[in-house]
Amino acid sequence: MNLSSHSAQPAKPRARDLGIPFDGTPGPLNAITDVPGVAVGHCTLIEGSSVRTGVTAILPAGRQGALAHLPGAFFSLNGNGEMTGSHWLEEAGLLQGPVMLTNTHSVGVVRDATVQWLHQQALQSRPGSHAHFYLPVVAETYDGVLSDINGHPVQARHAHAALDAARTGPVAEGSVGGGTGMITHKWKAGIGSASRVVSIEGRGYTLGVLVQSNYGERQQLTIAGVPVGREIRHSLPGQEAAKDGSIIVCIATDAPLLPHQCKRLARRASMGLARLGSVALHSSGDIFLAFSTQPPALADGLALWQALPHGRDIDPLFQATAEATEEAIVNALVAADTMTGLNGTVVHALPHDELRAVLARHGRLQG
Amino acid sequence: MNLSSHSAQPAKPRARDLGIPFDGTPGPLNAITDVPGVAVGHCTLIEGSSVRTGVTAILPAGRQGALAHLPGAFFSLNGNGEMTGSHWLEEAGLLQGPVMLTNTHSVGVVRDATVQWLHQQALQSRPGSHAHFYLPVVAETYDGVLSDINGHPVQARHAHAALDAARTGPVAEGSVGGGTGMITHKWKAGIGSASRVVSIEGRGYTLGVLVQSNYGERQQLTIAGVPVGREIRHSLPGQEAAKDGSIIVCIATDAPLLPHQCKRLARRASMGLARLGSVALHSSGDIFLAFSTQPPALADGLALWQALPHGRDIDPLFQATAEATEEAIVNALVAADTMTGLNGTVVHALPHDELRAVLARHGRLQG
Amino acid sequence: MNLSSHSAQPAKPRARDLGIPFDGTPGPLNAITDVPGVAVGHCTLIEGSSVRTGVTAILPAGRQGALAHLPGAFFSLNGNGEMTGSHWLEEAGLLQGPVMLTNTHSVGVVRDATVQWLHQQALQSRPGSHAHFYLPVVAETYDGVLSDINGHPVQARHAHAALDAARTGPVAEGSVGGGTGMITHKWKAGIGSASRVVSIEGRGYTLGVLVQSNYGERQQLTIAGVPVGREIRHSLPGQEAAKDGSIIVCIATDAPLLPHQCKRLARRASMGLARLGSVALHSSGDIFLAFSTQPPALADGLALWQALPHGRDIDPLFQATAEATEEAIVNALVAADTMTGLNGTVVHALPHDELRAVLARHGRLQG
Amino acid sequence: MNLSSHSAQPAKPRARDLGIPFDGTPGPLNAITDVPGVAVGHCTLIEGSSVRTGVTAILPAGRQGALAHLPGAFFSLNGNGEMTGSHWLEEAGLLQGPVMLTNTHSVGVVRDATVQWLHQQALQSRPGSHAHFYLPVVAETYDGVLSDINGHPVQARHAHAALDAARTGPVAEGSVGGGTGMITHKWKAGIGSASRVVSIEGRGYTLGVLVQSNYGERQQLTIAGVPVGREIRHSLPGQEAAKDGSIIVCIATDAPLLPHQCKRLARRASMGLARLGSVALHSSGDIFLAFSTQPPALADGLALWQALPHGRDIDPLFQATAEATEEAIVNALVAADTMTGLNGTVVHALPHDELRAVLARHGRLQG
Repeated sequence: MNLSSHSAQPAKPRARDLGIPFDGTPGPLNAITDVPGVAVGHCTLIEGSSVRTGVTAILPAGRQGALAHLPGAFFSLNGNGEMTGSHWLEEAGLLQGPVMLTNTHSVGVVRDATVQWLHQQALQSRPGSHAHFYLPVVAETYDGVLSDINGHPVQARHAHAALDAARTGPVAEGSVGGGTGMITHKWKAGIGSASRVVSIEGRGYTLGVLVQSNYGERQQLTIAGVPVGREIRHSLPGQEAAKDGSIIVCIATDAPLLPHQCKRLARRASMGLARLGSVALHSSGDIFLAFSTQPPALADGLALWQALPHGRDIDPLFQATAEATEEAIVNALVAADTMTGLNGTVVHALPHDELRAVLARHGRLQG
Repeated sequence: MNLSSHSAQPAKPRARDLGIPFDGTPGPLNAITDVPGVAVGHCTLIEGSSVRTGVTAILPAGRQGALAHLPGAFFSLNGNGEMTGSHWLEEAGLLQGPVMLTNTHSVGVVRDATVQWLHQQALQSRPGSHAHFYLPVVAETYDGVLSDINGHPVQARHAHAALDAARTGPVAEGSVGGGTGMITHKWKAGIGSASRVVSIEGRGYTLGVLVQSNYGERQQLTIAGVPVGREIRHSLPGQEAAKDGSIIVCIATDAPLLPHQCKRLARRASMGLARLGSVALHSSGDIFLAFSTQPPALADGLALWQALPHGRDIDPLFQATAEATEEAIVNALVAADTMTGLNGTVVHALPHDELRAVLARHGRLQG
Repeated sequence: MNLSSHSAQPAKPRARDLGIPFDGTPGPLNAITDVPGVAVGHCTLIEGSSVRTGVTAILPAGRQGALAHLPGAFFSLNGNGEMTGSHWLEEAGLLQGPVMLTNTHSVGVVRDATVQWLHQQALQSRPGSHAHFYLPVVAETYDGVLSDINGHPVQARHAHAALDAARTGPVAEGSVGGGTGMITHKWKAGIGSASRVVSIEGRGYTLGVLVQSNYGERQQLTIAGVPVGREIRHSLPGQEAAKDGSIIVCIATDAPLLPHQCKRLARRASMGLARLGSVALHSSGDIFLAFSTQPPALADGLALWQALPHGRDIDPLFQATAEATEEAIVNALVAADTMTGLNGTVVHALPHDELRAVLARHGRLQG
Repeated sequence: MNLSSHSAQPAKPRARDLGIPFDGTPGPLNAITDVPGVAVGHCTLIEGSSVRTGVTAILPAGRQGALAHLPGAFFSLNGNGEMTGSHWLEEAGLLQGPVMLTNTHSVGVVRDATVQWLHQQALQSRPGSHAHFYLPVVAETYDGVLSDINGHPVQARHAHAALDAARTGPVAEGSVGGGTGMITHKWKAGIGSASRVVSIEGRGYTLGVLVQSNYGERQQLTIAGVPVGREIRHSLPGQEAAKDGSIIVCIATDAPLLPHQCKRLARRASMGLARLGSVALHSSGDIFLAFSTQPPALADGLALWQALPHGRDIDPLFQATAEATEEAIVNALVAADTMTGLNGTVVHALPHDELRAVLARHGRLQG
């Protein structure tokens, strides 16, 4: 078990370090943690030849805000996947607790472990508080190509470890946490993140995205408009996945939004995905969640909400969602190293030099 | 053309005047117009032997607020019907302009006429304003049993007349406006309204409902829990309807709500309908709309919303929606007189005395 | 642990044995298991003073059809609850595997245990089959009033026990399986079931409902149109629930339906609930699932579906859904005995004699 | 009034004639009319200086199949627009009648005119048939930049003309029919179409798309991955639109699909739009409809549906939808000529030579 939310990795390049052009202006970390309060923790499980999995926890308001209710919503572009907690998110428009990411067959254990953790947080903040209930959000992608998913290696303590490891600051990317065994366009991928800062009516806001990316065919991959999936020749993974796809996109912003505005954001993750060539294949669970870190105030028995007004003010956030989703996925691809897993299956890293060469050929390499 | 929003009808009894028991406390008018600002206008078309139709206009914020954007949402229990403007209502969570009710084949003319009217309102309030666009809400039920629906008798001026006739105060019920030719559980019905006052955290709120009611089989009709549809023997209409159903329910409240809370209200209209024995038949367009008359304020470039807080505070509004929907439908039945229309078809009024007798037999008659 | 799917209970009366009138014609068992192939199993956990919980398994096509894909859909009337597997149900229109019912904080363990069980079924039917993945349906209601929900008493073996206990034939009702600690309108309730047989175009079909019922305020309860919740005076439970509601309704039919037709059925569970006085309170997770036991055939690379044709043919199933949902809930109330649980909390059974007396007073007692 | 469904235009180049690369294999016409049975008709209104509008009719099964019920569904990516008939489409999963496209303020007149036309078709095919009702699909985009939208120039006869002009064969593109006054990424656009042929399990299918395209900012436009909106310098329209967006995408296929499979297709139009740089701006009504031309058969009182089986077989249609949507929009841009309209506003055509030059610079020009 490796708690690697901020591991002292040798400085690895990220997508824009390679000269890949992206639109928009990222925040200082170019990560979901640029949104104030958002914390991320990973618990990475790499054991023997067949365990390549883990858990990632996104705390929308950090540990101190673990029980906060924040405006949120989800959108399912292709629902071949799981995201628990979605009925309540749809009904109430509020996200309570963390967003947890893991493998397909560990959603249950992570879900109940998150219930326990939330209950502990409640007991600590209000000792003696009576029984309450929780409907936490746990989402998944399938890592059974590299990991023995039916061995159910994830346990409650791993979920707790990811939650307890959650920190603000840089986000580890690639083969970490829930993304440990994940594959994208048949290259090794996993967790990726990116952010954008926008100005709306004179105010600055940050929007950040974290993906657990595990979708797509090789020949579909398009980066910066260039069909790199067809132009980079490289071996495919030795075994085809039973479930060759899925991507979870988590969008956070400090812009004040109502729940239905969060849903509008969630839908725009589709646009980021499409920029990379995805058409949301049948076997892919492409489910997106967006939240704002600005909860309503309570005054005199009523909720007081601030929100972006009705109108075009929200457009920069739509643009930022598409851009940051696109870049987060490429970051996941760029960060991951080649991995050998279950049954000796090798999934290769996207070769940085070849990627740069292809982009250069098309006049799309920057710097 | 009869502009009968407040016609000097002889005082007709309403449902509770007959001793039918209902739960909850109605407002002074027991009508949607108990919600401050809500105005209703009817244009009734009864001509010759085959025109039995019309238009009803609900102005959520009166004429002076004709262009206001109010929080709103819809729910389709059974979508065999039309309600225009619903895509925008779903996306923006805002209702702009009136809610218009008419027959199935006049939705278009009423829709464009409402666009014209809104454009006129905009020009009057902001002379010289440049082109704008409107996506108004127009809903329908089918009156082809009593009226020559393919004769398209409704014209733009009838929609304008209903809009211009809109007033606060008592609401004419039964065979008026859009409800002129409508039938419910095979009795003559049409427009009905009711309201409830509730107290939430020490504040008083009003919720009102207006229905254009045109659904249901005879034997399903249940009033105050009593299967009156089976116990009252009476002739059925001479001709079966091609489309034997549909009900539009419009719910208004002055409680401050966010759009997704309005959607929760809209879904509860189902519960009122079910109390009367409806199971939402295949051929029925049972589409419901709810709005709050409390728009957000704008301050310093942000929208400021007050809303009922997350939690059980909303429950009295759920209860009120079910109760007022139920009573509004019975009011439509009680108000309507027997009507003869297309091809001599006669649709009978629900006989008040027999209804009272059946309720009395079951110990359900009040007063 | 008590595997009580068909326990040799002394013959307890069911709702209609008490003379409560219901519409429609039930099947021979008046249970979901009247639908050919549907099997139900319970695992009931009653231990010491504070464990009152369990698991119920509904196998849509029995154990031999454990991996079948059947047309299905869900509807959330009020999403304050959990039903996993819903994204895929919505996307594919197909239900694979059982429908599992348990308490709110055991959804995870039951979910992963069901994954394991499905994987075992797959290995048995296709030895050596490579890794596959599952997105099972697990739903819940909250039993923390009578049971120590945060003690997490349910384990994987209990889910497996419920699955392995699943049988066709009569269904145990009341305080069994997932319904063990459940409360309805503040009376003891739990699992209930009912069915209807209908004739459509000369063919006979069966529709069955199973509920895990745990919702509602006392004064709302209406049975056969009579406000029994107000007329029967009896002590309320000693402790108010943190989550005072929720009902899961599972609807099965052997009528051939497309997925979107199943969704139409699921929505009609609302109508059954409303007949009993429910308005779907804020804190209630009222989530409904409907499936048909008629899968498509595969021929020459295409799926061949039979389905009820577009039109009114589906109306008897709408009626049956409302009726069977209503009766299943009353069956859950009638079957449950008074229970003492967590912290000595007593939840009383609905007193049969008083219920009969109130119905008789209103001329609504049958037989 | 110009009935220009197949006008003898001088052979204008289409997008791929310019050397723009697209993935996939188009049908012979590279238009929605490659799908057997689909017919398209335009009525173009260009009068004086301020009328630049019209109506486009898509007949899914030609005139002879005007009353057919075909499997269909819609998806609203951003609902700032109108598409009537959507409640019924969602409920029944069936599209009856044509898909009509016009300007925002003429939806009503076109809707009622389509009702009349359908009624006429019914009378002709079944003389003496009694009253029926219709809930036709009419969608819109806003042409008020070039046309006097509040002058309401479209009349019922224009809708009838478009319907009567509908033919199989090549589809006129650019400033015709409903697309007459439309603008895309601030270049003149309008109607565009494209198709793909795919092979699934040894069978060939065709999927065609028709767009009425009117969305987007200049700098967003990306063609073949190249940011042409930023690299082609050219004057913007003299007047900003009040509603600067909207695109209606109509997807047709002869692959046999169930309604929920059509909805999956409709969602994929988003992916085609995103390839061109769209992020679905706030003021854009991006609403998509998909239908299959394969209706169920009726046998022995049951509907018999053939459909692509559950699984990856549908992936080529997802890919085709994204590709054909992308190409249809570029075809609309390439086909349209510079137009001068209301108040002398000039909207320029996308300059073909400059487009080719930019693509060549990026190694993306073909042939």
